[in-house]
Amino acid sequence: MEKLKKYISLKDEDQFYHQGAVELLVFNFLLILTILTIWLFKNHQFRFLHETGGAMLYGLVMGLIIRYATKASDVESGTVYECEKLNSGPSTLLINITNQVYEYQYKREISHHNVNGHQGNAMLQKMTFDPSIFFNILLPPIIFHAGYSLKKRHFFRNLGSILTYAFLGTAISCIVIGLIMYGFVKAMAHIGQLKQWEFHFTDCLFFGSLMSATDPVTVLAIFHNLRVDTDLYTLLFGESVLNDAVAIVLTHSISIYSPKENPNAFDAAAFFQSVGNFLAIFAGSFAMGSSYAVVTALISFMHLTKFTKLCEFPMLETGLFFLLSWSAFLSAEAAGLTGIVAVLFCGVTQAHYTYNNLSSDSKMRTKQLFEFMNFLAENVIFCYMGLALFTFQNHIFNPLFIFGAFVAVFVARACNIYPLSFLLNLGRKQKIPWNFQHMMMFSGLRGAIAFALAIRDTESQPRQMMFTTALLIVFFTVWVLGGGTTAMLTWLQVRVGTDPDEDLKADAERQSASNLDKNTTKAESAWLFRMWYGFDHKYLKPILTHSGPPLTATLPEWCNPVARLLTSPRAYGDELKDGDTDYIINNDELTENHESSAHIPVSAQESTGSTQATAKEDIHEGDLGLGEYKLQLQHPAGQPQKNSLA
Amino acid sequence: MEKLKKYISLKDEDQFYHQGAVELLVFNFLLILTILTIWLFKNHQFRFLHETGGAMLYGLVMGLIIRYATKASDVESGTVYECEKLNSGPSTLLINITNQVYEYQYKREISHHNVNGHQGNAMLQKMTFDPSIFFNILLPPIIFHAGYSLKKRHFFRNLGSILTYAFLGTAISCIVIGLIMYGFVKAMAHIGQLKQWEFHFTDCLFFGSLMSATDPVTVLAIFHNLRVDTDLYTLLFGESVLNDAVAIVLTHSISIYSPKENPNAFDAAAFFQSVGNFLAIFAGSFAMGSSYAVVTALISFMHLTKFTKLCEFPMLETGLFFLLSWSAFLSAEAAGLTGIVAVLFCGVTQAHYTYNNLSSDSKMRTKQLFEFMNFLAENVIFCYMGLALFTFQNHIFNPLFIFGAFVAVFVARACNIYPLSFLLNLGRKQKIPWNFQHMMMFSGLRGAIAFALAIRDTESQPRQMMFTTALLIVFFTVWVLGGGTTAMLTWLQVRVGTDPDEDLKADAERQSASNLDKNTTKAESAWLFRMWYGFDHKYLKPILTHSGPPLTATLPEWCNPVARLLTSPRAYGDELKDGDTDYIINNDELTENHESSAHIPVSAQESTGSTQATAKEDIHEGDLGLGEYKLQLQHPAGQPQKNSLA
Repeated sequence: MEKLKKYISLKDEDQFYHQGAVELLVFNFLLILTILTIWLFKNHQFRFLHETGGAMLYGLVMGLIIRYATKASDVESGTVYECEKLNSGPSTLLINITNQVYEYQYKREISHHNVNGHQGNAMLQKMTFDPSIFFNILLPPIIFHAGYSLKKRHFFRNLGSILTYAFLGTAISCIVIGLIMYGFVKAMAHIGQLKQWEFHFTDCLFFGSLMSATDPVTVLAIFHNLRVDTDLYTLLFGESVLNDAVAIVLTHSISIYSPKENPNAFDAAAFFQSVGNFLAIFAGSFAMGSSYAVVTALISFMHLTKFTKLCEFPMLETGLFFLLSWSAFLSAEAAGLTGIVAVLFCGVTQAHYTYNNLSSDSKMRTKQLFEFMNFLAENVIFCYMGLALFTFQNHIFNPLFIFGAFVAVFVARACNIYPLSFLLNLGRKQKIPWNFQHMMMFSGLRGAIAFALAIRDTESQPRQMMFTTALLIVFFTVWVLGGGTTAMLTWLQVRVGTDPDEDLKADAERQSASNLDKNTTKAESAWLFRMWYGFDHKYLKPILTHSGPPLTATLPEWCNPVARLLTSPRAYGDELKDGDTDYIINNDELTENHESSAHIPVSAQESTGSTQATAKEDIHEGDLGLGEYKLQLQHPAGQPQKNSLA
Repeated sequence: MEKLKKYISLKDEDQFYHQGAVELLVFNFLLILTILTIWLFKNHQFRFLHETGGAMLYGLVMGLIIRYATKASDVESGTVYECEKLNSGPSTLLINITNQVYEYQYKREISHHNVNGHQGNAMLQKMTFDPSIFFNILLPPIIFHAGYSLKKRHFFRNLGSILTYAFLGTAISCIVIGLIMYGFVKAMAHIGQLKQWEFHFTDCLFFGSLMSATDPVTVLAIFHNLRVDTDLYTLLFGESVLNDAVAIVLTHSISIYSPKENPNAFDAAAFFQSVGNFLAIFAGSFAMGSSYAVVTALISFMHLTKFTKLCEFPMLETGLFFLLSWSAFLSAEAAGLTGIVAVLFCGVTQAHYTYNNLSSDSKMRTKQLFEFMNFLAENVIFCYMGLALFTFQNHIFNPLFIFGAFVAVFVARACNIYPLSFLLNLGRKQKIPWNFQHMMMFSGLRGAIAFALAIRDTESQPRQMMFTTALLIVFFTVWVLGGGTTAMLTWLQVRVGTDPDEDLKADAERQSASNLDKNTTKAESAWLFRMWYGFDHKYLKPILTHSGPPLTATLPEWCNPVARLLTSPRAYGDELKDGDTDYIINNDELTENHESSAHIPVSAQESTGSTQATAKEDIHEGDLGLGEYKLQLQHPAGQPQKNSLA
């Protein structure tokens, strides 16, 4: 008899597995549908809906179906049981129910006002997955891929501007949104539109910081397809990548800002502690991420006597690369830092150093692996966003608040881009033109990070309202702004695309002109950039990779014994004293050219003449292998040829 | 004040994330260590410890450290709370503790005698992860990869033998182990070595079925490195792949075998129901898996007018391939079938049909993706096995039972291999020689599947004893038998390796001799094989792929309209009536040759002459990119050249 009972309970357990399978199947189905739709769109050169927008749309429809087609089943789950013996919630709870012990695992704390939301539909509950999944599973590959596929040359050339937008811009955006929302909230409370919740200035700042994370994935995909001006692309891409990191750390710092007495009064000590927290977490995460990448570079670079190098075993190499990069994330999390930030800088450093040491097989494997993980994770998140609009059970729609948020986000973006561009143009040789500024203003889409930050804490009512609002802003920006990108590009007369033949010619021209250009390039590059590049080229690259001059040439003479120890026999023999930057740039590009010509398949539509150039672009920007299309937009003639350099 | 409290609880939650990070970090660390060790071993041509064995060893050491270096922390977790209001365990429990509501999630049912095991070390509990993770996350990629990397030609040539070993052999093994263990258990109870647990014959059969899943991953890796006779490799590989599927379904069928009255008496109705269950689940899973693969083949084959084919977008193609294959698993699970079996046959079918339709980029991407997932998942499982010996808290070591199990496993393997080989040799033209039989007998390693099946249910004491015993058998077979493989091959004089030059010559010889061989090949191949190949070549291949004759030629005349609709314009124009099998074989190999020469990097150690042959082998068997080594063993001369054919 007891045996029989056990089998029944075994079946119950199986039931649990099966339900998990059904939920995953729903997601799989949505993703398959998304892929098929994208295929359809690609065929019709339909550019208004990016795959992420499509995923969101399908998620929305599926959410609607789940919401209204399934009925409440698990009535008992809304009941709260009393347990006076306990003082705090243990991580595991053993409960004796009718003489059978069950193990329960701690999930979360619930505010009293949310208990009602738990009554009802079990399916909805199942489809709402743990916010930590976003931060621990879905975001890391996306962010790593962003760092790993960074266009190094243009990124470093625009480093100063990117850093300004990312740090100063995000801070401005956060404060402006915070102030505007605080005004709105006060006004709403005044006219009685807001219930008497505690809505402090820090809450508004929290909202400001999470809404400051831009995610122009749709815009960037279109930019890539249309081959929009590379400087604009880099500015936007660099800003969005770094700004995610800044926004995440900023949100964290604000959430642990706790003034001692009156939460509305300004507490200087607490404020400076928050600033200190921000700097410490950011710097710590940066150090954690890049040091793991440096370790990877060193291991993949090692050449001990009697040892075949690791690059002889591509699978081990790829495995190590993957595990060490993931460890950067986990170590940062374990140390109380921000894993996402660590993994971003890990990606950048891996691309800069380790990538050069990898075997050509591993280069391809790692690129493709992270490209694929990025593709899947991105679509899952956008799918889930669509779902969440209907399956999340504690939405608070407040039209006035939402209206205020839209205004605030718009104004904050303007306060970020235009003043900073003005300031940057004072220092830049190559100015950021007005149409670029408008385009950057327009490309302030919100996406995965804003959503993930908002869903992380939805306990209190203000936070629920913020979540709902953030979700709607994501929907609006992805569909409306994302869909209008092509039109906006035409309207602003941003230079798009180059004829493949022209591209090749420009390539050749550049080759011959590189000596003449050298001084110009140097003048354009910022002081910071030159400092860094010199140091990097002279010391870091020789230590961590095969490129650059031998250390014996760059280090002072008294360091020679150490230098000889660290110098690879394969290190290049040349000792260019001048034009280092150009040397590196050419060197990098040669590597990539070599690599891409070895294994990147070229889509059939391309004319054979442009093969090389296209393949290089492909591996560079993580095109997701979606192929290339003929350009539909005309570009205004007479712009400097320079902008077309890849 | 309340705000402050919330922040504290937020920090608590963060604490939970961090702990998760620490556990994963431990695994990452172990895997990194394993990879570095393997690299070391590869350098020293050290073949006694395979990477899985190494992973297990490191896991063991780490388990030892965690067990004895961390102290009991979470004392409260051993307490059982009473809750009289409930009648059954709901999936989520809301509990009010000191005026704060906490949400708890149902984890599992615990037997009373296991409650004590829950006292104590929180770290140990954390490191013991949910058994469902094995079945839902770690095993599917391994099994799919096995199916996807199957050597089709040799597999189908030995199909009859493989099926015999897999189905009949596993049944024999299960029954023999069951009977021997039942005898042991009875004897132990008689001499008072076993406490009065209920230990039925079905329990023994359950143990028999889970111990029948062989996993000679170590042996196969060595076979591959030494290029052991392909027929032996195929027999062993094919047997182990299919036998996993059989063992899983068998275990499931036995666990739901519930005789109505006396559990020791034979209940014919219940027995036949179990047999029926077995057949239904197996056939259902097979159908589920292969139909998803057929859908994938059809989608990737589609060429609608005005549509670019899916293979123009490798990322979409890879994504679709991955998602549909995963859906096969999830659908089978959701339908109450066995996902692992579904995913196995999905892999085989994908390799047979879809693979031919994929773009060369996607071919490589899918191969490498699953290779990588297989590599990681396999090492995680073996690592975890090592850990489990010390971190699992309910081990029951019973020396007599363990001794009995070792004897039973050995005897059962012998009863499986020798009689079946004798029977098969009656029908086979190309006999299975004695040394092959001994080698197969020796290669009866137990691994991931046996472990996963054993850990799935560790509630009752008999099951805990079985788990402990299974774990020890895995350790012994992987380390001792795995480590002794090379010695055994030498001792049994199994033909290993061919000189690269000779290989090339043989290749050329085969090319010219293929016409002469045709009749021999036909005679050798089993009746089943020829039937299937004819049908496959004439109807399935033309419908699902670009290869094979056009349907208009193979279907009867009255089907012509339908046939024309289904025929691809790219279908081959030839209408070979005879020698179909050879044609297909050559055709397959040409495809692979073409593909591999395009992008597979060749390790530097190889002489240039053998490039082609090696590259082909690489892509074929999923070498994991570990490179090729010179052979150390001498092979006895005078064996037929035939065996060396790749």
